[in-house]
Amino acid sequence: MNREWNIQASNAALNTTNPIRAIVDTGKYKPNPEKSVIPLSIGDPCVFGNLNVDQYVNTVLVENIQSGKFNGYPPSIGYEASRTAIAKFVETKTSPLTASDIIIASGASGAIEIALTAILNPGDNILIPKPGFSLYECICHSKGFNIKHYNLLPERSWEIDIDHLKSLIDSNTKAILINNPSNPCGSNFSANHLQQILQVADQYRLPIISDEIYAGMTFGDNVFIPIASLTETVPVLSIGGIAKRFLVPGWRVGWIAVHDRNNLFTAIKKSLVSLSQLILGPNSLIQSILPSILDTNNEQINKFFQTVNATLEEQSRFTVESLSKIDGLTPITSSGTMYQMIGIDTSKFVGIEDDVAFMGQLLQEESVFVLPGTVFGMKNFFRIVFCAPMEKLADAYQRISVFCENHRKK
Amino acid sequence: MNREWNIQASNAALNTTNPIRAIVDTGKYKPNPEKSVIPLSIGDPCVFGNLNVDQYVNTVLVENIQSGKFNGYPPSIGYEASRTAIAKFVETKTSPLTASDIIIASGASGAIEIALTAILNPGDNILIPKPGFSLYECICHSKGFNIKHYNLLPERSWEIDIDHLKSLIDSNTKAILINNPSNPCGSNFSANHLQQILQVADQYRLPIISDEIYAGMTFGDNVFIPIASLTETVPVLSIGGIAKRFLVPGWRVGWIAVHDRNNLFTAIKKSLVSLSQLILGPNSLIQSILPSILDTNNEQINKFFQTVNATLEEQSRFTVESLSKIDGLTPITSSGTMYQMIGIDTSKFVGIEDDVAFMGQLLQEESVFVLPGTVFGMKNFFRIVFCAPMEKLADAYQRISVFCENHRKK
Ligand SMILES: Cc1ncc(COP(=O)(O)O)c(C=O)c1O
Ligand SMILES: Cc1ncc(COP(=O)(O)O)c(C=O)c1O
Repeated sequence: MNREWNIQASNAALNTTNPIRAIVDTGKYKPNPEKSVIPLSIGDPCVFGNLNVDQYVNTVLVENIQSGKFNGYPPSIGYEASRTAIAKFVETKTSPLTASDIIIASGASGAIEIALTAILNPGDNILIPKPGFSLYECICHSKGFNIKHYNLLPERSWEIDIDHLKSLIDSNTKAILINNPSNPCGSNFSANHLQQILQVADQYRLPIISDEIYAGMTFGDNVFIPIASLTETVPVLSIGGIAKRFLVPGWRVGWIAVHDRNNLFTAIKKSLVSLSQLILGPNSLIQSILPSILDTNNEQINKFFQTVNATLEEQSRFTVESLSKIDGLTPITSSGTMYQMIGIDTSKFVGIEDDVAFMGQLLQEESVFVLPGTVFGMKNFFRIVFCAPMEKLADAYQRISVFCENHRKK
Repeated sequence: MNREWNIQASNAALNTTNPIRAIVDTGKYKPNPEKSVIPLSIGDPCVFGNLNVDQYVNTVLVENIQSGKFNGYPPSIGYEASRTAIAKFVETKTSPLTASDIIIASGASGAIEIALTAILNPGDNILIPKPGFSLYECICHSKGFNIKHYNLLPERSWEIDIDHLKSLIDSNTKAILINNPSNPCGSNFSANHLQQILQVADQYRLPIISDEIYAGMTFGDNVFIPIASLTETVPVLSIGGIAKRFLVPGWRVGWIAVHDRNNLFTAIKKSLVSLSQLILGPNSLIQSILPSILDTNNEQINKFFQTVNATLEEQSRFTVESLSKIDGLTPITSSGTMYQMIGIDTSKFVGIEDDVAFMGQLLQEESVFVLPGTVFGMKNFFRIVFCAPMEKLADAYQRISVFCENHRKK
């Protein structure tokens, strides 16, 4: 035996592609070297330094580090006290939880990966939103799970097209995945709409995976409602985490809350525990602070949440206000999160073929970096992350306005 | 449509089983309620509180937390500065590395999962050690990768049976996985033996995955040699992490170092980057301290390493000394790590059928918890983790001695 070296990548690896990279990082577009780049593209509230974790959180973390008590391996599903804290933080009166209903994971990303892996076999399919967070697709492609995209309707504040959702279900469908509040839409579903979704799940006996990483990050009268709180029959895996709410995405702690009143998820729960053993869960120190920072009676934290929401709400309002003034752009007002989707009427512009061209030329001319809707499956929209400080947002929106004027069809 | 609810776990989940749990947690054996339990079973140096991370590490960590600079998402493969630090920490004169050769992962466990997933397709096989760390098998089963166990030879200080290794290779073999220094064996391969392994890899054109999580944790004259430092031809993925060396397994930061002098791993390197995007890497704060704590010129850390090794060496010597005195037990002296394998001559005892019975009855009678070799694929051995403080070890070994006398064949 003396064959040549020939080391191939696995199919799983080859099928793991990041649609954002594939569409955005083509090397075709470069920022204007004469203008500073304003990145409104990344779903990371820490990019600009204006939004910071509460000092209380750091204080507890430092104390726990100094104690030396949290350096060993936690159980693979997480410390019991931390899971109890998550259970209390996530549960509602109608959907009680205990520590045994919680699996702690490496961010919401890790939680989603485990949840999908527990439920789907290669060849099965899952219903996911369009537009939607690209990781769902990325994980499914990597693992050979088929996806069917159900439409969200911009004209109905990004509610699900329920008839379309139903029409996609077949005998290989294993779950409905929803994301509420939504990235990239910034929408927050009403109780009524959540009931409609539950009805479909009930009718077709499909469990729900609800990505609620933006839970509680809503504006004004919009109240976040966990879908699990509205059903006594449909089993729900609710995904959450501290990344966005506490402004610490780098800390990588998320969770799955198993809502299962009728023991329909017994096999799944066992599976989630097994799968958690593959990489042994996330950082012990961050886990150790959860009982303090998730305490719903913690005034300091509750105030922090309010302040962050108020800041984001103001930035959201300013975003919609500024961009609505530009003929050819139509923001669909966000109800929460840190995202804003804006429709592009390409007929109003010259030489801007679609959203990808819009993104590229905006970057090239004005050094403002947004994401084209295409990376979320929604052509001729773009997404803005409105976490930047007001003066940066003002600068960016001014540049977008100039850009649109420069390309306006006369 | 109105079928019954019937939510099944996926095959991947059903195939994810922990052999330790399956063999040890049967509920058959309970500790003796009259004696305090001494757990010498868990590979976690933090269990007893006698081995602690260096205060310098905590100081840097606290500084970086207070800076507020490390809360955002790092790149999915890790901060560049951290990857540079790992490259410098891991490289040797003959096997230079740069940041671009490093992927940071969720512990060595996460690193192993990504490495295997990048190289193997379901149905491919990989050669893994017997006895060996159970996670390899667990990951492979979960993902449908076949495994072939090559034998380690206790009579040769757990060197690989090279002829056996060769005999297992077929056209579906994709890599050789070695673990050096070894869990559970406590062995450390010589340059000569590593060369023999490389020869096989070279001859059959198989890349090596070398799990070196216990790198540098060796005793006396035993020097750890990274296998990559001995080859110019065989591409090597070297797995490492801070868990054991820094006594912080809960912190969950590990890495893959890609040693690829001849660009044979181009596809694999790309794949590792893609796969890292699925869960977005480990905690940013711990990543942020790597440039400080992995600095090979850091006297404080170098002294810490020496102290830890000296402590473990003393505990290892005491372990071998104590257990060699017991007729029917044969410790194979460890060269490093925190593990000791001990052969059981069952013919010397009455009513102890095998290592699993030995473990169970020892727990039941003396409340000393060890792991039976069977969980690592090595019948009639047991593994001790000798991290406990001396007085605990002394107590445990005294109890083991009593246990053996009580069961001695007259
Ligand atoms: C909808 C959604 N789910 C999950 C995640 C990932 O969260 P984490 O950083 O906790 O992995 C994100 C991050 O942007 C997100 O937008
Ligand atoms: C040989 C070996 N590899 C990898 C690991 C996992 O290391 P980590 O805690 O960094 O995931 C262990 C832990 O016991 C081990 O013994």
